[in-house]
This record gives sequence, C-alpha cells and structure tokens, in this order.
Amino acid sequence: MTHLVPVILSGGAGTRLWPLSREAAPKPFMPLPDGETLLGKTALRAMLLPDVRGLVTVTNRDYYFHTKDVYAGLGEREPRDATYLLEPFGRNTAPAVAVAAQLIRARHGDDAVMLVLAADHLIRDQASFASAVSRAMELASEGLLVTFGITPTHPETGFGYVACGEALGGRAFRAAGFVEKPSLPRALELLAAGTHVWNAGMFAFTAAALLAACERHAPAIAQAARTVWQPLASRTDEAMLEIDAATFASAPDMSIDYAIMEGAAAAGEVAVVRGEFDWSDVGSWQAVSELTAADADGNHGLGERVAIATRGTFIHAQDRVVATIGVENLVIVDTPDAVLVAHRDHLQRVKEVVGELKARGHEAYKLHRTVARPWGTYTILEEGPGFKIKRIEVKPGGQLSLQLHHHRSEHWIIIRGTARVTADDRVFDLPAGESTFIPVETRHRLENPGHDTLAIIEVACGDYISEDDIVRFEDRYGRVAG
Amino acid sequence: MTHLVPVILSGGAGTRLWPLSREAAPKPFMPLPDGETLLGKTALRAMLLPDVRGLVTVTNRDYYFHTKDVYAGLGEREPRDATYLLEPFGRNTAPAVAVAAQLIRARHGDDAVMLVLAADHLIRDQASFASAVSRAMELASEGLLVTFGITPTHPETGFGYVACGEALGGRAFRAAGFVEKPSLPRALELLAAGTHVWNAGMFAFTAAALLAACERHAPAIAQAARTVWQPLASRTDEAMLEIDAATFASAPDMSIDYAIMEGAAAAGEVAVVRGEFDWSDVGSWQAVSELTAADADGNHGLGERVAIATRGTFIHAQDRVVATIGVENLVIVDTPDAVLVAHRDHLQRVKEVVGELKARGHEAYKLHRTVARPWGTYTILEEGPGFKIKRIEVKPGGQLSLQLHHHRSEHWIIIRGTARVTADDRVFDLPAGESTFIPVETRHRLENPGHDTLAIIEVACGDYISEDDIVRFEDRYGRVAG
Repeated sequence: MTHLVPVILSGGAGTRLWPLSREAAPKPFMPLPDGETLLGKTALRAMLLPDVRGLVTVTNRDYYFHTKDVYAGLGEREPRDATYLLEPFGRNTAPAVAVAAQLIRARHGDDAVMLVLAADHLIRDQASFASAVSRAMELASEGLLVTFGITPTHPETGFGYVACGEALGGRAFRAAGFVEKPSLPRALELLAAGTHVWNAGMFAFTAAALLAACERHAPAIAQAARTVWQPLASRTDEAMLEIDAATFASAPDMSIDYAIMEGAAAAGEVAVVRGEFDWSDVGSWQAVSELTAADADGNHGLGERVAIATRGTFIHAQDRVVATIGVENLVIVDTPDAVLVAHRDHLQRVKEVVGELKARGHEAYKLHRTVARPWGTYTILEEGPGFKIKRIEVKPGGQLSLQLHHHRSEHWIIIRGTARVTADDRVFDLPAGESTFIPVETRHRLENPGHDTLAIIEVACGDYISEDDIVRFEDRYGRVAG
Repeated sequence: MTHLVPVILSGGAGTRLWPLSREAAPKPFMPLPDGETLLGKTALRAMLLPDVRGLVTVTNRDYYFHTKDVYAGLGEREPRDATYLLEPFGRNTAPAVAVAAQLIRARHGDDAVMLVLAADHLIRDQASFASAVSRAMELASEGLLVTFGITPTHPETGFGYVACGEALGGRAFRAAGFVEKPSLPRALELLAAGTHVWNAGMFAFTAAALLAACERHAPAIAQAARTVWQPLASRTDEAMLEIDAATFASAPDMSIDYAIMEGAAAAGEVAVVRGEFDWSDVGSWQAVSELTAADADGNHGLGERVAIATRGTFIHAQDRVVATIGVENLVIVDTPDAVLVAHRDHLQRVKEVVGELKARGHEAYKLHRTVARPWGTYTILEEGPGFKIKRIEVKPGGQLSLQLHHHRSEHWIIIRGTARVTADDRVFDLPAGESTFIPVETRHRLENPGHDTLAIIEVACGDYISEDDIVRFEDRYGRVAG
C-alpha cells in the first residue's frame, strides 16, 4: 500500500497581516483568533490523514526553532519523524518542492506520494479534505501530477485558476490549462463559465513523477535539486538538513505552477481534484476578521473592546482596551508596539505600511516586542538611557549560550520556575523570588533544568546596551560563529 | 494701588479627553501636544500679569501634590506665595469661589481683586488677555462683579452666553443677563444679533464685593464659606488649607453663574469685558487636535505615524507606531493602556466610553499606567501571576513611606541617580547599576538624597501582590492613616 508524505512549505514576508505578522514571524506563525497558528493547523490537518508517514517541512533556517516549537505545541499530535529542509533564502516553490522530492524518493522510495501543502492556508472541513486527498493519491499513484481546485464563489482576481478538462471520475478532471491571476472581466467570465476552479496551491504526486516532470519542464531546477541533495544523501538519519546556498542560488526563482505544472498540463500529465472543503489563504485582515463571529452591529474581534455607534468593525485588542466611537467598516489591530487602523476597502495596502517602516529603519516591520529564540522567548518591557528590561522565558531544558558582555551588567530575578545559573566558575540553582547579579566581563549562562517554563526578569545596566555586545563561547544551537 | 490675586479652580472628571485624561489625572494635568499642561499654562498666564500677589489654587486634595509638581515645573516662573484650598469633593464653582474670597479678604484685605480662572482653558494672546484683565480690575475696584466674554465665531451650543447691556467704555458693558447653553436655533439668533458673548468662565471682583453678593443671592453658600473659614482663619502662615467636609457638604452644589452672577446681573451689579484674545475650553479632542499643524492632507498629531490614503485625521501616538490606511476624519489616541478610535463627528460621546469602563470595573477610566504620587511616580511595566514590575521615579528629596509587606518581597535595581535604602536597622546608599533585596516583613523605605531624579526598577514577587498589602509606619505626606 502506498503511503503519504506531507510536505509543508512555510515562509512568507509578514506584510499582509502586519502588525500581527512580521518579517521574523510571518503568517504561518501568527496566532489566529482561536490562539492557534496556521502552521500548527496545517500540520495537524496533515497528521490526521490516513496512511501518513513522516512530515517534511521546507522553511527558512531562521524559522527552524520556531517551527519545531509550533509542532511541539500540538502535544499528542506532534508530528513524529519530522524532517526539516532549511533554505538559506526563499527561491519560490519549484526549487523547494524539487529538493523535497529528492529527499522523499531517497527516504520513502519512488512510489511514496508527496502531499504538498502551504503552511498558511486554512481548511476547516477535515472530512472533505481527506476525501479529496484520497482521490488525489489514486491519481498520483497512476503517475499523474495532481493539483487541488476550489469551486469559485465570486470573481476573485487574487488567485490563479485551473481549467477542468476531461472528467476522470470522483470529482477529478484532467487539467486543461492554468490561468494566472485574471482581470475582473476575465474572472467574471470564468465564474460564469463554471469550467475553472481556483488553484488552491496544494499538490499530490509521487516523488518520481515530480522529478521526471521537473527534468522535462524545468531542467535547471532539476539539476540544482540533484546537486543540493548530493551531500545530504548520506545523512540518512538526520532530521535537519541545510540546503547549500551557492547551489540553491543557481535554481531559477519560480513557482511550481509556472515551472512545472503548466508544461505538464499541456502534456496531459496533470489532474485537478475539485475539493468540496472550505478553503482560505487568509490573505488579508478581511479573511482573519471573518474567523470571528459578528455581533448584531456586524462588529467582531477579540480582547477588551468598547464599541459605541460602531458598525462592521473588527478589533484585535491584545494588551490594551480599544474603544471606538462613530466608525464603520474598520479593521483595528493593536499589538504591543504597533497599531493599525485601516478601512476594510484598503486592506491590500497594508504592505505599504511595512515598506514605509522598513524605509524608516523602524524595527516594527520585522520584529515583535516578543522575539522567539531557540531556547524560548524574550520580551523587551522597557528600555531607556543606561538600562533595558526584558522578560526572558526559557523552555524546559532550554539553555542560553555561554556568553559575556563588555559593557553591561545584568540583574536576574526569577519569577517562575527554577534557574540554573553559570557565573564564571560557579553553577547554582535559583528558585522563584530569588535573584543574582552578573557583573561585566563575567562568563555566564542561564538554563532551565526543570520541567516547566522558567521566567526571569533581566535588568541590564550599562553605558552601552545593545544585542551586539555579546561574546558567545558555547551554544547548543550552533550560534557561536553566527 | 490695588493688587491682583489669581484664583485657579482646578479639577474635572477626566472624561472628555479620555484616554489622555483620566479621573485621577483630569484635563488640567493632561500634557498637550507641546508637552505642557493647561494648569501650568494657566498659572503662567496669571503670573505674567502686572500687580499680581500670591496665587490661590482651589482643587481636590487628591490633586495637591500633582498640582505642586506642575507649578514646580515652571522653574523660574514657579508661583511664589502659592496657597492651596483643598476640597474633600467637588461642589461646583460657587462654594469654591466663596471660600477663596474668605481667604483673600483675610490675607489680602477687602480691596484686593480676585481673578478667578479655570485651570483648563487655553488663551494664547497674553497681551490681549492682560489688557482685558486690566480693564476688569478697574471695574472690580468700583465694586462691580466682572465676567469675561468672548465674541462668538459660530453658533456654539456648548457654552453659556452673556447679554451685553449699557456700554461702560473700554470694551466693557453692563451684563444684561445670562443665557444657559442654548439650542441651535437660539444660538443662531444670538450670533446674528451680535448682542451676546460667550461666557468664558473667568471673573474678577474684590473679595468684599463677591462675599456681599454671595450673602444677598446665595446665603447658604455664604454661610458655609464662613463656617469653613472659621477654623482656618488662625492658620495665617499656612500654604495648604483643607476644607472641612461636613460643612462643605452643606453648601449647595451650584455654579457661580447660577448662584450669584445671574441675580447680581438682574440687580445691575455685573459688568462684562469683551476679550479680544483667543480662548478655548479645550473641551474635546477636536480642540486638542487643532493645537497641532495639519499637513497637506489635513492630518496632524504627534509621535511615530504612517498615514496612507488618510485625510483629516489626528493621531496621538505615544509609545507605539500608529498606521492608518484609507480613513478620514478620525481621532486616534494611543496610550500605554488604552486606544481610542473615534470619528470627529462623535467626539462628544467619549464620556460614554469612560462610563462603560467604570461600569466594567476597568481601571483605565481612572488611572494611567503611570501614577503620580507625592514623592514622584510609578509605572507598572508588567504584572503576572506572582510578580509585578514597576519603574519608580523619586523626585530629589522625595521619600516613600516607611513600610512593610506581609506577602511580597521586592528586588530593587537602581537605574538612575542614587537611592538611600532603609531596611530594618540598616540605612545605605546605592548608585545606578546596584541592587538590593527587601524580604517580606522587612520595614523598608526608599528615598532620593540627590539633586537629580532617582529611578529604580522594582520587581515584587509573592503569592499576593496588591497595593493593599502595605503597612505604613511613617509618611512625610501624611498617609499613615489613609
């Protein structure tokens, strides 16, 4: 019996859902109104399918630890046998899928079916999704490249479309062609004709079929994937594989649709399965706002809100109370360091805000006030001349690097859990309520030897307090050089 | 030569300019876009007049230290011989003015002219203001009660009006009557007639004339003012006088216009001086927004802003970046614990937000995240289960009470200045960068022996962390019992 290997492609620019998504924590990692992430939901959706073995995640190396954290957060449903292909930079979907196919052919054989999923799409109807995947597996096992289509409900100009040709039975068709994002008149035609479906950006094929199609239609990508895979092939037991930057750069920056599927469709090698499930690419605040129920005035959102004479407005209130008076059809998103107030009709311009902040050198385009690290997170509570206050949370077993600062001393106050502190030659444990002082030039390390989260308040004092005043001697996460 | 004693009436509910004004820090204390407060500007305006001697401030006792801080902030212009009449609760303007008249008659004599000013009005043309006050002094010295009128520029329904009667020369008229806040048709009539001016809520009269008019037109208030003054009369050197609550409660809760001026006008005892100065009661966010210059799109405000397709919008950005897209005619006010997004046409409903927060028991109706104390300020940076982090700033010479907590220990880290710490029997000084630990049940005190502000970070840890776990042994500001 053929088995299924889900491949999650995860990344993004963090621009369309700013300020909740940021460059360093793009859409897959963004907490939705229910508190879960799109990445977590995607992994869970894949894990719940029958005949699944393993999980391959292709993502930027900067997101590796964050991704593992999200999977660990699934508890019992945490993917077993997860493998990570880490990109040095984004190169669109075709090279990512080709390298993943090399990995899957090597580890699972020619006939394993890869199910390629975007990390930041939302599907709620698991049964219909599973049914579509099951049909796709049958077609993939016949050697076809399978894409998934969604029946259009409106003349959307933001998605690509797939033309349905010869019926293959079981809601499947041979793909007669691909249409890039259409103009509105063309989208209206496609909607009226009923012959086209939205291209959902999900695919199923055997590794062998994909690689063969890649050789035929995108030989430069096939070549790059082979070269990238070569040094990794012998590392058969490793879960984390870094893609070589120089080789990867030689692969054309192309989507799988454009590089492979269009040509394959013309050769009659592509099938499309019409999904009956709901599907959203959560591409704007409009889509996020629709995830919460509206009240009688059409207002929705989460957090502490006071809405007076307010209609059709979505409010994401995080730590603060948000009050509105006499406004209509707004999206208001409040985060610890940035607030967005946008009219629903202009949400596609959110990325311009991010561009402007980037141009100004304002950190809010990139980082949240809470920053994810391999060992946990830190949150800057306040900084001023001569001091910086952080709350540092360390995961059970987590360990910061052994380090030293030339220009700042640090006071650590334990507020939850137990801290193991290294300060030069001494190593000692501190429970909640205790504190210690790390003078300048002291080699120090913080770790969490316990089974619960460790939280400390760090007050750094000195005339120069910047992340670059750090000398790392030893780092479990390989950051000594970096 | 007669001299002038300014009397500033200071208080307010903190509702119309929420979230920048709060019940504990109402409009007079609110920082304007230029960083100054209306109270400070009012005191300065009074101090710059000729022939001024002393300054009487009538305010709630809760605002005493905050008021002194604002005056001290005027530096060289800090009012000398400032006297404070502290109310136990608000009783409108008539009782406040009557008690102030008792004080001024006792300390300055029958002929001193009181100039009664609201603490939260804005006048920028000092020369015209001084000229109007000079004319008012002449009329007051003749025994008249003088009010100030502003020539209407629009049919305002939010102000009272004064009818100008017989011309007295020098832009003064006998007041022919008072009109309460009119309907819009009536306001249009008054504007067209040109016979009425806005009642600016400022007055000039001798203490003797005011008290005599009070006896005739509001005998219950006159009686209460006499009784309140009796025990204070002998305290001739004291700058801070607390008004007795039981007696004060017996005074009718009435405005000076309604209780005294209307009757006195009917008896021909009131003059009105038409001011040529600009005047604003800064009664809404609209008025505050007009204090900043607009850009080409009619947007204005302060702080870090990104405005895309935005028009006519005022943004007060405090610690965060505020981004707007596709919005028009909004007022957006961002503070550390609350955000307001209101349409300009609905700003009179801001007080409904405050009412709603009060009903919910949400602290943001009352307190800012930074709270003023006699010795300085504290700001809550974060709190969570088992801990609370504050930045505490102590004025030069300031001293917190000698106190003890049963349920929390405190870590203090000095980030600016030098701290003098008392911990049981020990007293020691700590410079910036140092820290100390105050265990539970330890009598402790923090003070600032230096000439610059002292700033510390306090991390309190314990199973019960609330302001009510405090035993005060000794307090320079009289708070042991309270």
